[in-house]
Amino acid sequence: MKKPVYLFHEGHLDDKALLGNKGANLCEMTRLGLPVPPGFVITTKACVEFFKRGSRFPENLQEEYLKALRYVETQTGQEFCNPARPLLLSVRSGASVSMPGMMDTVLNLGMNDAIVEGMIRQTHNSRFVYDTYRRFIQMFAEVVLGKDRHAYERILSDYKQTHRYESDLELDAQDLKSIVEKFKNVAEVPSDPHTQLRMAIEAVFSSWYTLRAVRYREYNDIPNDLGTAVNVQAMVFGNFGRSSGTGVAFTRNPATGEHVFYGEYLEQAEGEDVVSGVRTPKSLDQLSEQMPEMYTQLYEIQQKLERHYHDMQDLEFTIQEGKLYILQTRTGKRTAKAAVRIAIEMVREGLITEKDALLRVDAEQMNYFLHPMIDPEAPQTVIAQGLPASPGVAQGKVVFSADEAEDLAAQGEKVVLVRHETTPEDIHGMKAAQGILTKLGGMTSHAAVVARGMGKCCVAGCDELIIDYDQERVRTRQHVIKKMDLITVDGSSGKVMLGKVATIEAHADQDFQTLLHWADRYRHLHIRANAETPEDAQKACDLGAEGIGLCRTEHMFFAAERIDTMRSMILSETQKERQMYLGRLFEFQKADMQDLFKVMTGHPVTIRLLDPPLHEFLPQNKTDIQALANRLGRGYDKVKQRIEALFEVNPMLGFRGCRIALVYPEITRMQTKAVITAALEAQEEGAQVYPEIMVPLVATARELRFIRQEIETTANRVFEEYKASVAYRIGTMMEVPRACLRADTLAPLAEFMSFGTNDLTQMTFGFSRDDVGKFLPAYLEHETLKNDPFVILDQRGVGELIRLAIGKSRPINPNMEYGICGEHGGNARSIRFCHHVGFHYVSCSPYRVPVARIAAAQASIETMKKQLHPKG
Amino acid sequence: MKKPVYLFHEGHLDDKALLGNKGANLCEMTRLGLPVPPGFVITTKACVEFFKRGSRFPENLQEEYLKALRYVETQTGQEFCNPARPLLLSVRSGASVSMPGMMDTVLNLGMNDAIVEGMIRQTHNSRFVYDTYRRFIQMFAEVVLGKDRHAYERILSDYKQTHRYESDLELDAQDLKSIVEKFKNVAEVPSDPHTQLRMAIEAVFSSWYTLRAVRYREYNDIPNDLGTAVNVQAMVFGNFGRSSGTGVAFTRNPATGEHVFYGEYLEQAEGEDVVSGVRTPKSLDQLSEQMPEMYTQLYEIQQKLERHYHDMQDLEFTIQEGKLYILQTRTGKRTAKAAVRIAIEMVREGLITEKDALLRVDAEQMNYFLHPMIDPEAPQTVIAQGLPASPGVAQGKVVFSADEAEDLAAQGEKVVLVRHETTPEDIHGMKAAQGILTKLGGMTSHAAVVARGMGKCCVAGCDELIIDYDQERVRTRQHVIKKMDLITVDGSSGKVMLGKVATIEAHADQDFQTLLHWADRYRHLHIRANAETPEDAQKACDLGAEGIGLCRTEHMFFAAERIDTMRSMILSETQKERQMYLGRLFEFQKADMQDLFKVMTGHPVTIRLLDPPLHEFLPQNKTDIQALANRLGRGYDKVKQRIEALFEVNPMLGFRGCRIALVYPEITRMQTKAVITAALEAQEEGAQVYPEIMVPLVATARELRFIRQEIETTANRVFEEYKASVAYRIGTMMEVPRACLRADTLAPLAEFMSFGTNDLTQMTFGFSRDDVGKFLPAYLEHETLKNDPFVILDQRGVGELIRLAIGKSRPINPNMEYGICGEHGGNARSIRFCHHVGFHYVSCSPYRVPVARIAAAQASIETMKKQLHPKG
Repeated sequence: MKKPVYLFHEGHLDDKALLGNKGANLCEMTRLGLPVPPGFVITTKACVEFFKRGSRFPENLQEEYLKALRYVETQTGQEFCNPARPLLLSVRSGASVSMPGMMDTVLNLGMNDAIVEGMIRQTHNSRFVYDTYRRFIQMFAEVVLGKDRHAYERILSDYKQTHRYESDLELDAQDLKSIVEKFKNVAEVPSDPHTQLRMAIEAVFSSWYTLRAVRYREYNDIPNDLGTAVNVQAMVFGNFGRSSGTGVAFTRNPATGEHVFYGEYLEQAEGEDVVSGVRTPKSLDQLSEQMPEMYTQLYEIQQKLERHYHDMQDLEFTIQEGKLYILQTRTGKRTAKAAVRIAIEMVREGLITEKDALLRVDAEQMNYFLHPMIDPEAPQTVIAQGLPASPGVAQGKVVFSADEAEDLAAQGEKVVLVRHETTPEDIHGMKAAQGILTKLGGMTSHAAVVARGMGKCCVAGCDELIIDYDQERVRTRQHVIKKMDLITVDGSSGKVMLGKVATIEAHADQDFQTLLHWADRYRHLHIRANAETPEDAQKACDLGAEGIGLCRTEHMFFAAERIDTMRSMILSETQKERQMYLGRLFEFQKADMQDLFKVMTGHPVTIRLLDPPLHEFLPQNKTDIQALANRLGRGYDKVKQRIEALFEVNPMLGFRGCRIALVYPEITRMQTKAVITAALEAQEEGAQVYPEIMVPLVATARELRFIRQEIETTANRVFEEYKASVAYRIGTMMEVPRACLRADTLAPLAEFMSFGTNDLTQMTFGFSRDDVGKFLPAYLEHETLKNDPFVILDQRGVGELIRLAIGKSRPINPNMEYGICGEHGGNARSIRFCHHVGFHYVSCSPYRVPVARIAAAQASIETMKKQLHPKG
Repeated sequence: MKKPVYLFHEGHLDDKALLGNKGANLCEMTRLGLPVPPGFVITTKACVEFFKRGSRFPENLQEEYLKALRYVETQTGQEFCNPARPLLLSVRSGASVSMPGMMDTVLNLGMNDAIVEGMIRQTHNSRFVYDTYRRFIQMFAEVVLGKDRHAYERILSDYKQTHRYESDLELDAQDLKSIVEKFKNVAEVPSDPHTQLRMAIEAVFSSWYTLRAVRYREYNDIPNDLGTAVNVQAMVFGNFGRSSGTGVAFTRNPATGEHVFYGEYLEQAEGEDVVSGVRTPKSLDQLSEQMPEMYTQLYEIQQKLERHYHDMQDLEFTIQEGKLYILQTRTGKRTAKAAVRIAIEMVREGLITEKDALLRVDAEQMNYFLHPMIDPEAPQTVIAQGLPASPGVAQGKVVFSADEAEDLAAQGEKVVLVRHETTPEDIHGMKAAQGILTKLGGMTSHAAVVARGMGKCCVAGCDELIIDYDQERVRTRQHVIKKMDLITVDGSSGKVMLGKVATIEAHADQDFQTLLHWADRYRHLHIRANAETPEDAQKACDLGAEGIGLCRTEHMFFAAERIDTMRSMILSETQKERQMYLGRLFEFQKADMQDLFKVMTGHPVTIRLLDPPLHEFLPQNKTDIQALANRLGRGYDKVKQRIEALFEVNPMLGFRGCRIALVYPEITRMQTKAVITAALEAQEEGAQVYPEIMVPLVATARELRFIRQEIETTANRVFEEYKASVAYRIGTMMEVPRACLRADTLAPLAEFMSFGTNDLTQMTFGFSRDDVGKFLPAYLEHETLKNDPFVILDQRGVGELIRLAIGKSRPINPNMEYGICGEHGGNARSIRFCHHVGFHYVSCSPYRVPVARIAAAQASIETMKKQLHPKG
């Protein structure tokens, strides 16, 4: 085949597909003139060819790599197989995508007994040579021959026990020589260096198809026919003597983002020793004192690399006998804070563009600027692990009821509300608590959704809790927490901890604001928020929301003075009675909507009609039922019977959403009248109002047509009464699979379609989000599902329905506006999908608005880049 | 326009689209030489043109119909507008499809004061003439001018009250003349007969767009641009004198199907009088005595008509002064029994083919041959109305618990089990009861499905019942039924009746068998049954099933001696403990499966893995929980806690189906081992076994892949152990929308796909079938839904998912076998869909098998006919 092997100076960074990431970087550094130990790359194409030939080398491969090897010998002045001046090699795999599960590295390849003796003669350091030999034998046997590492570890530990050594450092050359002999008995490592090299290359190739690698590729949609490259490189030794050493460095501080050269260095050591943490490394400042010329060289190299790669680099270096080698460079990992700071400073330094800066950050990390974090240094006792349902940290005394939470909070106590699950009846307690911890429910359970809406920390689905409401205590695997015990709950990690753990305060700094500002320049998606109260709406606007995409009107009826009216309305026995209570609810709703319109002046506000099943509003315990019966002047049994009659086996699929509007159109009329009246009055007072009325849970065109008529008739009646009008729009939630399948029939009846991906996911998968905790953990653990589909939108299943819906409706109503108001509207990966599928806006919790702004900008920029470079 | 008017002798039966049904039949009879009063048809095209011209007549229409009118005058010897020998007309609408809500008929058109006088002179019967005039004025005013009928009725009743008349017959000519004068004051009926005719034609045209007609067309997908024809015909009078009369006749007995001429006749009367039932009509035998020549003519005509139309005819005739006229012929309505008998006898008489015979019957009517019916003549007190969930009639004493049902049945009592809803725990009581009556749940609720499976009568969703278990009584709107009161429940109509109502026994007669036998010759769909027990399987085979399409293995674990083991298995605390209980369940399952394989020898048996949520198996009441705790040797609280931990908010979308298999693969292994072992042993004993293992509730390919591996590994292990093997297949239920959307990824992992349309409908609509009773009645009443989607498959929504699934999977696995095992598999209209969409089989309750055989044959025959006559 054509050129199966590239010497480092022959390759380019752009050849990643052919040379793999590692190989391409080594080539690039070589071409930049950096001191990279010489070597060559066997291409991914050679690997593919290897499999095509039934696991045999392509015809000219051996010839070609031997030719390259000879060139390496020339460059190093050493010779493979020659004991007098032996060349040792490292052999490493390197695909074009990061690929766990594949063979990693064989170091020191090329050793045998004769070479060992030559090396001792050359280095006069038999301990070093035997130690290297021992490591080689074990590494080759494990990695190439597939031997179990325990056999080697046992020999070593037995030897140390017999000789009463505590540490490896106590082993002298003779000890190591004996160990080498024992190691040789475990598996036969071929003594011919060429055989070693051939076998190592074959092993790297073959590791492309290990089970783990195959599963990883399947899981991440990486084609099987990419193959891996093999990097063969001359060994250098950081443990050769006093003027040798090895280290890792970052071109900027990966924790803070500060523009300083940052790293660690270990004298007389190999890379392994830095990573293993056996010895405490020195700072680069110390290197600059001890070997100033080395430091200067390194400093210049890192500057060069960063300028060349336009990103913060993480590099590995080795100094052998006063000579500096760069072994690897790659993009450095960094904290959220550092990522933002580096991106912004690099723009200011002219290294990258604003667009690049936006692509550099992880949109999800924006959260860290808004919520406090557990101090990673602080000691902590984790007592349980749940789902990270709403970020932030809550610290307070455990209480088990919403009422108690409210009472204690009123007394100035900080409390954490612990419940099996929460219901709308717990809202006051959730408001009063620092955070919420539930045993049941997933990322979109009531507790999680409400907590995120409040910007309050929540850990949900903490299945291992055994909560005993009667005894007022909760048991975990190893602890029992009583009421009023102090705990810390971390909504970003899902951890529940004993006592009060130290935290780091959040602050949305200037860098954060700058980046968001840039994002707004590039994004096409509008960002709205899900909010009901003027406070939440204001918060959303402060964080950059451009409207309300989901105002859940039912939330307005749970306040103490309102729920009674709501309950009376539901249990009304005549239309007349119901009308009276609706009249009262109208006043509440109108006032609320008016406040909201004023806060949101100039922005659209999407108001969803009553959605939850009616029984969610009704009391379940005896005392409350009795109180309700008294208020209604009816018997306890009668009221109880009415409540029980509303019971549902599967409330999620029951009498809710627009189904309520079809059976009780008077509720729709009241809500419409409240929205339109409030809009007119707010307009009168100078607000610019853009009300949008949204019909939930639509499954058929007839439902929407019926409700649309009710809304229009009611609105016209208000307009006549007020001798004024206001532009408003009517739209539908798309949250029932059938609505997507029949979107063509809904298209003429709606001005906008807002995908309610929470419910759409529930129905498309047949997963109840309240119950998914029973099997979702197993699904995620066994990788039956890649992600919780309630967190990251299932683009192939649910997304297919969304694509179908848009494809069917857009031709019929080209002015249709599409949006999303499920929880996915605040998830970066899902927002990308929303952009590509052609949505006009996403709507999310107020605290997710910054994430959404960044993610939307990233999606736009990616699209622009793809249009510029179609092949990229 | 070209020929807007057809004289009756100019039209053909084939011109239905142009002439409407009624017009085409009148033309056909005229062309056959039958004595039809002369007339003409104004075409549907003229109607369409009328609307195109903004509700104005096409240019030549009036000219053409006047020409036709002159021809009618020539034929009758009478003259329109001529008082000396006046021609009166009937004007009737007639679209090519039956269309309620449109203008019906104006009779006696052409009268005015002058004509009246002429008619009196001619007939010497002024009472008859004024009565006719009065009727004309009212009819024209109502139908053409849109006046309210009450105005006329009030005048008539006031007049009778003033004159103390009891009946219309007491009105004499003078009375009627006075009434005519009063009628004239209500609305001005034009006196010019030509104006009357023009207005009547316009009114018929315009009625095409009445709200009710438009809604009807929208609802039934009838295009708006068909238009209606107008039939104008000379009046004949059955009330002219003693040798006049009118009647209706059927060419065969519509109740029994017997081949005898059958009908009723009223002397000196108009058609109205026969229909209104004021006077008791005579039989045709009496006509043959009184006017033998008329009878002979009529007899010959009906024979001619039946031979011509190849179907039983329902005809209207009038005799005017000893002359017979045929006014209408149409296909006669008939009972199920008659339909089958007529179809079969007509084939034997050579009138129609077997295919025609199969298309003539209503597949749903096959049910009547299998279940007893309420005697329509018997007196009955209906006390409540529910859903007709499972056909048949049950009569027995009311009991409120399954245990009691069992106890009383054991004592020889016949009981009806009345429950809010049923659960798998009630099965023994359902078996013991004559029938089941539930307050909750729809056509596919547990009670309905199980009852249909048992062939037992059930009325479900009888929402108006107020059941009080404590007091052991049930209240309806007007009655209170106590325990042990006798009731009758009609599962075919949904009616609940007081006491014991007389019934008619069912018998699957020879005609029924013959028709089914013919059906098997033409159908392409295979018919399987849903069955678990050998008894049900045998019943299904007797009724013609060709396999089992759904064996719900969980049903095998509810028997008293097994449920304990099942419960212990579920609550096992260690894998070892669970294995022990699974070992016991294995024995039960194996034995059951072996019996089933033997009964079904030669046929496939599809076994579905455990499907329901585990909590369905666990006890809910204190006593049972305590008993279970004792058996397990654990504390009550601990067991209760475990049971509560399995509680689910939406069990339908919870931890069930293949999700159980993913978390507890040992259950799948046990079930597979039982199926395969049973198959091997049954094979050993000579049975031909075709086991198929079906995985329920699959949403992702990974689920199916995992379970497929478990099944294959287990099966191979059994094969090794037995040193024998058996061919088996693995398939998946398609009941989660996502499975349909991702069918391409499931295709390589399944040999068959069986659409579980119950759950698929639940998830596609977001309707819980257990809760749908709260809003579905309102939906059906307001026509928001045409049909209960759990009874008749929603072809546009759910069907779209099915089409998508087949479209995506077939190209990848062309050998895939498709079937349906939801309740829709037994519904005739849905079976038609199954045929057209390309299914290989449908599976339904054993008692629905005959329906399915006929429906499948009908679908095939329709397809063949379409292929022969592509335009038809």
